[in-house]
Amino acid sequence: MRILILGGDGYLGWPTAMRFSQRGHEVHVVDNYLRRRAHTEAGSDSLTPVADGLPARVAAWNDVTGHEIGMTEGDLTDWEVVEHLFTTFRPEAIVHYGEMPSAPYSMKDREHAVFTQTNNVVNTLNVLWAMRDLAPEAHLVKLGTMGEYGTPNIDIEEGFLEIRHNGRSDYLPFPKLPGSMYHLSKVHDSHNVHFACRIWGLRATDLNQGVVYGIQTDETQLDDRLLTRFDYDDVFGTALNRFCVQAVVGHPLTVYGKGGQTRGYLNIVDTLRCVELAVLHPAEPGEFRVFNQFTEQFSVWQLAELVQKAGAEVGIDVEVRPIDNPRVEAEEHYYNATHTKLLDLGLQPHLLSETLIESMFATIERYRGRVLDDHILPRDRWRPGAAPAS
Amino acid sequence: MRILILGGDGYLGWPTAMRFSQRGHEVHVVDNYLRRRAHTEAGSDSLTPVADGLPARVAAWNDVTGHEIGMTEGDLTDWEVVEHLFTTFRPEAIVHYGEMPSAPYSMKDREHAVFTQTNNVVNTLNVLWAMRDLAPEAHLVKLGTMGEYGTPNIDIEEGFLEIRHNGRSDYLPFPKLPGSMYHLSKVHDSHNVHFACRIWGLRATDLNQGVVYGIQTDETQLDDRLLTRFDYDDVFGTALNRFCVQAVVGHPLTVYGKGGQTRGYLNIVDTLRCVELAVLHPAEPGEFRVFNQFTEQFSVWQLAELVQKAGAEVGIDVEVRPIDNPRVEAEEHYYNATHTKLLDLGLQPHLLSETLIESMFATIERYRGRVLDDHILPRDRWRPGAAPAS
Repeated sequence: MRILILGGDGYLGWPTAMRFSQRGHEVHVVDNYLRRRAHTEAGSDSLTPVADGLPARVAAWNDVTGHEIGMTEGDLTDWEVVEHLFTTFRPEAIVHYGEMPSAPYSMKDREHAVFTQTNNVVNTLNVLWAMRDLAPEAHLVKLGTMGEYGTPNIDIEEGFLEIRHNGRSDYLPFPKLPGSMYHLSKVHDSHNVHFACRIWGLRATDLNQGVVYGIQTDETQLDDRLLTRFDYDDVFGTALNRFCVQAVVGHPLTVYGKGGQTRGYLNIVDTLRCVELAVLHPAEPGEFRVFNQFTEQFSVWQLAELVQKAGAEVGIDVEVRPIDNPRVEAEEHYYNATHTKLLDLGLQPHLLSETLIESMFATIERYRGRVLDDHILPRDRWRPGAAPAS
Repeated sequence: MRILILGGDGYLGWPTAMRFSQRGHEVHVVDNYLRRRAHTEAGSDSLTPVADGLPARVAAWNDVTGHEIGMTEGDLTDWEVVEHLFTTFRPEAIVHYGEMPSAPYSMKDREHAVFTQTNNVVNTLNVLWAMRDLAPEAHLVKLGTMGEYGTPNIDIEEGFLEIRHNGRSDYLPFPKLPGSMYHLSKVHDSHNVHFACRIWGLRATDLNQGVVYGIQTDETQLDDRLLTRFDYDDVFGTALNRFCVQAVVGHPLTVYGKGGQTRGYLNIVDTLRCVELAVLHPAEPGEFRVFNQFTEQFSVWQLAELVQKAGAEVGIDVEVRPIDNPRVEAEEHYYNATHTKLLDLGLQPHLLSETLIESMFATIERYRGRVLDDHILPRDRWRPGAAPAS
């Protein structure tokens, strides 16, 4: 199958590209290095030393496996880039990771908020119009986030919900309570993609993904030049990945507030499998399908304790230290989200274990010298007028 | 009260500004003439001859009433314009009409879709950040649209709905099924504004407005130079207004498809009263309040028959002619939307009557010579590959 991977230079995009290529698909990746530039801007960097751009990555991939991955260095908000990709590569599936993915980045100030929403909404609109006019049979696999739902006081369903009201009923989009300017951009995308399916008959799968953890996949392990990036900083790092780095470098695990914030989580290898399952089992024409893509729920506090326990196993003394929450979010709440659709398609979860955490410790230990200590604590507060965390 | 009117040159913005000014409020209007430029681009124009820009309008207003309205010719997507307005005028209420308001415009092609969403989302984000940092106590009265809800098979509530699910319940945002790129932009705005209230404690009222009809308000009738614009073309004209023009010029009333499309409608004088009620009874800090702003429901077919009947009264023979629907929408559907919150605040509706339609006929007759016949039929089809209407 011809698979176009948008955001193919990212934490998940690059391993996804390698996985599809390894399985014999024709893969083309696109990226404008937004994430790399944002790190340069902030003075942070990936823990893992990743190859210097897409040309080096696809060359290494070809060198190691003999497979070819096509690549474009370009910005998807530029229509000419999108039009050229669709005209020349003629994708059958489009895996769309190509967005600004950070909540803290989007909350930094007005410029970052406007940039995040404009970038994400416009590049997705470009993809939808390209599908409409140039690839109406193609299947869009769009990365969304579980954060679109927020933390409602009812069970979260997969995208839609049967609502009974005043003696009538309808199967309607699940209400959204996104928690940042970034999460809002994903909600906007979901509405736009749903519309394109309803009105133009496009087919799309919205993967409302939980928080991803892990460093290695089958393909990244083939050669050091194939490593994916691994972020632990306050802007792009996510809870478990950041905790593991903190444990290794001897920094207390920074739990935001009460630590009762519960979310869905999944291993990076399960992300790749979920995306593969979605691509191999496309939505029907006109169908807008939503999968909740995670395998387990944890509170931040539970994660911290797991890391602490795994640390004890390998002789690391891990301290857990609650800090003022820089975000504005419920710290104790009900949370129960359905996630059966990907299991029904055949997903076999790799659940979080102390063994996995210990293997992450080992990889992190290897790159420990690259850790920038002053990029671990949150620097931006979401409440107007609040002082930075200290 | 110091009231800032965004989009103060528009069909509703200008009469709203005059009404508040007449009642002794300090009013400042802003507009970048987007609507005027879109008409120039399309070769269409307002039926009524409106004063040539804001300087002429506020001068005429001062001349007629002795009241002063401040004005800024500027683009709200430009942060410096917004920042300057908030710093110098220090608004207590912001009435936000300042968006691209046309569904057909937004569906014309990719450029128009991207422009509509970018323009509306970015200028609203700018307003929210300005409120956050420069006017945290101010009250935003944001014009949304009933079209955000679409046509679900259950009763439509005012913004929120108590949802019971698996033995639990929560009061959550009403699911949205917007029907165009424009309507989507309003859904994006609603999510952004709701977020700003939840996270930053801002106060906002989202007015989900129905289709507005009518030409005259108390203030527009004071002097010809105070007229508001009146659009009847395929891009900016709305059902009843367009039908009245068609009746007067002897054009068959063009009902799209089966004509069962049911929507909420209201008289322009009720729009002004609703906005006034919202401004005079502000939301609480942190509150995101949604009012469904319309007074009656009609199907397109019912409206056409009403116009036909009013025509018969004054000796005009009105033909109703169904044409292929250029839009993609349900033409027969359930529709029942709650609209009690504005009534509770004191709204006394001016219901649609043959008398009102006849008085619209009279005003239209006066400007009959300005009607451009070739701008009445729809020129753009929303389904890919469909031919234009003939």
